[in-house]
Amino acid sequence: MKSLSLLAGTAVLAVATIATAHADEDMHPTVVARHAQMQLYAYNVGILGGMAQGKIDYDAEAAQTAADNMVALTSMNTASFWPEGTAEGTKAQPAIWENLDDFMSKGEDLAFEAQGMADVAGNDLASLQGAMGNLGGTCSACHREYRAR
Amino acid sequence: MKSLSLLAGTAVLAVATIATAHADEDMHPTVVARHAQMQLYAYNVGILGGMAQGKIDYDAEAAQTAADNMVALTSMNTASFWPEGTAEGTKAQPAIWENLDDFMSKGEDLAFEAQGMADVAGNDLASLQGAMGNLGGTCSACHREYRAR
Repeated sequence: MKSLSLLAGTAVLAVATIATAHADEDMHPTVVARHAQMQLYAYNVGILGGMAQGKIDYDAEAAQTAADNMVALTSMNTASFWPEGTAEGTKAQPAIWENLDDFMSKGEDLAFEAQGMADVAGNDLASLQGAMGNLGGTCSACHREYRAR
Repeated sequence: MKSLSLLAGTAVLAVATIATAHADEDMHPTVVARHAQMQLYAYNVGILGGMAQGKIDYDAEAAQTAADNMVALTSMNTASFWPEGTAEGTKAQPAIWENLDDFMSKGEDLAFEAQGMADVAGNDLASLQGAMGNLGGTCSACHREYRAR
């Protein structure tokens, strides 16, 4: 992780010069990146969860798209998003860096359940609902240990 | 687009209940999602561009990861991120909705050049630099027409 942490530090300048318009100026670029990652998870899981709960009408194509997007997002390698020393001012718990292998394995759990959702989301509402518990469970499992309330 | 726009509207509640912690409360969830998408582009292109410009030491593994992440991100279907009526208060130009096919095709151009970068980014710095112009060019081409300065 050391070289990636150093890289993330030196990436500040590049991100600042190339894409200032998108970066929140007060946040470390890795914090911006992981918040963005979580927001895209939330958007897609929000659609799937809304359908599962009956708050959004089930739409096979939209459900499949949201599930496929989760597969794409969870295929990213996000190791560089979590350099040590970037917890302050965020909800990231120090436990992340004490258990980095476990933390990263929870990301793999999410990827696995995203694929499980993508395998069935476009079939029908009952199939989507059947996969929702496992998918949502991986969110909760990680947040419980590694995100401040 | 109509059903997706409606869907995006009704997704507000679901996103709010499932994942409040990640959503910016004042923004439409599709605006949050597309800002997040751009931030993740900026993070990864920032690493690649920083290396191309010599501001970050070239690292084959980190370059390959950033390029692969761009391939993953650009494989998302983001049509639902852009419902009509969501330009206000953002840098999105009304021209997006007057030329939606062209706008979406510019996203496909980005995906194509991201794959071009991923094909060579891990080889050596000269290869990365050679692919950077086309990749950065797709960012500029879209921003020039569709993003306010």
